[in-house]
Amino acid sequence: MLKVVAFGGGRGLSASLRALSRLDIDLTAVVTVADDGGSSGDIRATRPVLPPGDLRKALVATADPAKIEAAQLFSHRFGGEDFLTGHPVGNVVLTALLERHANPVEALDVAGRLLDSRARILPMSRTPLDIEADLAEGSGIRTIVGQHDVAVADGSVRDVRLLPADAIACPETLDAVAEADWHVFGPGSWYTSVIPHLLLPDLREAIGAAKARRIVVLNLSEEKETDGLTLAGHVDTLRRYAEGVRFHYVVSGDARTLDDPESLNSAAQSLEAELIAADLAADGVTHDVAALAAVLGNLLVEDGG
Amino acid sequence: MLKVVAFGGGRGLSASLRALSRLDIDLTAVVTVADDGGSSGDIRATRPVLPPGDLRKALVATADPAKIEAAQLFSHRFGGEDFLTGHPVGNVVLTALLERHANPVEALDVAGRLLDSRARILPMSRTPLDIEADLAEGSGIRTIVGQHDVAVADGSVRDVRLLPADAIACPETLDAVAEADWHVFGPGSWYTSVIPHLLLPDLREAIGAAKARRIVVLNLSEEKETDGLTLAGHVDTLRRYAEGVRFHYVVSGDARTLDDPESLNSAAQSLEAELIAADLAADGVTHDVAALAAVLGNLLVEDGG
Repeated sequence: MLKVVAFGGGRGLSASLRALSRLDIDLTAVVTVADDGGSSGDIRATRPVLPPGDLRKALVATADPAKIEAAQLFSHRFGGEDFLTGHPVGNVVLTALLERHANPVEALDVAGRLLDSRARILPMSRTPLDIEADLAEGSGIRTIVGQHDVAVADGSVRDVRLLPADAIACPETLDAVAEADWHVFGPGSWYTSVIPHLLLPDLREAIGAAKARRIVVLNLSEEKETDGLTLAGHVDTLRRYAEGVRFHYVVSGDARTLDDPESLNSAAQSLEAELIAADLAADGVTHDVAALAAVLGNLLVEDGG
Repeated sequence: MLKVVAFGGGRGLSASLRALSRLDIDLTAVVTVADDGGSSGDIRATRPVLPPGDLRKALVATADPAKIEAAQLFSHRFGGEDFLTGHPVGNVVLTALLERHANPVEALDVAGRLLDSRARILPMSRTPLDIEADLAEGSGIRTIVGQHDVAVADGSVRDVRLLPADAIACPETLDAVAEADWHVFGPGSWYTSVIPHLLLPDLREAIGAAKARRIVVLNLSEEKETDGLTLAGHVDTLRRYAEGVRFHYVVSGDARTLDDPESLNSAAQSLEAELIAADLAADGVTHDVAALAAVLGNLLVEDGG
């Protein structure tokens, strides 16, 4: 069975995981662990656990359809106005599991069994990380620390880094990366969910050294952190951080790419990758799961893996 | 298959449920919904849901052994010092389910599936209740409202009531009570977990009208709320609230009963019940699950149901 590793963070990773879960493959998700906003940020502020939100989304995206009650429960976000308000149940459950198991991989394996997850969900690192970015501000540069603040800051991102600088990848993640037949990057918040996987030196090296073929799935909708960045600009930015990493396919689901593929095509070629353009938009903003599954399934089968 | 309904509240009900779960029976737990202390009290103070703690304990006590990871997770109580501190994960999960389902019976059925519970867990009422008690204080009477305060108050309980006075039983509970072959009361906090089932008029009437035979399991350890009350006093107190309800067996697991059964025997006879005395203490304080299962199993089989 083909081994596929999907890299990402929050909602974008959920899109690729929902699509890949439909295929008969051995699927692993590698999830960023730098979120510091919302419920995850609150939990992280007082407990030394991985921020649970993106891990929860990956678990829910890959839950067996027979476990829909448990998956809906994981996603249930408390309303009202008390200590639970704003927290999804799954974040609380994951926090407990992360406290009960010294190795977060074990905690995530237990969570995966609760939802009969069709993927193994792994963190990029066993320890919580932070994102630091330099943004253009007037003629100068402003440095911002924190994934949430980077994602919503004004000004265009010039550089992005992970803190602490000596962070290392999760060993189980390195193993999965090495054994994979395919690596899938994106869609997702480019600087805060996709590129971070290339910012951990040992993870980037493992990705580059692996025998896997690599697919980049571009975004359909614009986000604050990539305001003004073209699709070709997304590819160029990825290349900048992907030293030693070869990409084979760039998938664009934006209908505009079909009308005018040239600029994106040349960006893909700069990666030595082939551009796959298709209309994958369910509603102009999010990926149609069935359409994305069809495109990815064709690539995996046709290219042999 | 014999249908057995076990009535109780927190830890005491867990003891009878753990024992009854070992038998090949159709088991239903009916759980008090008046807890207002600790995590349940905090949740209840801001959310209009049933206090989840005793329901959680019943679910965990009946969880399939194959679901031990989920059961341990339900019981995991957060440490530290933040908004989660002191709350068991299962209370948070149950709160979400109770908010997601207008009928708490549906919420508990979902929770039961998460743990593959070997019993159906039902609330005595669909709405949260409160316990009010009159306690002897000097030559007078002091009235206290709230299960927690009643349980820890000084002075002996003279009378106990449920609020609101017009509360009604959960319909699914009335059905289970009517269809049962056996009703099992106790062990548990006598005034705040066992007797409350007899304080709801429609529930008491349903119990009295049911064809079931009835077992009372007495406590092994003393509690603040029954300080100074003998085992015979427990039986007498139960009888006082059990108008129209016939009991058939009184099980005492206290080794002292074996040495001197007379006073308890006469109390049991005042109920027209047979005294079953056995050494059921695992550690002098809690019931040995296997021993209690053996005694209850013998009664259920020998008496035909």
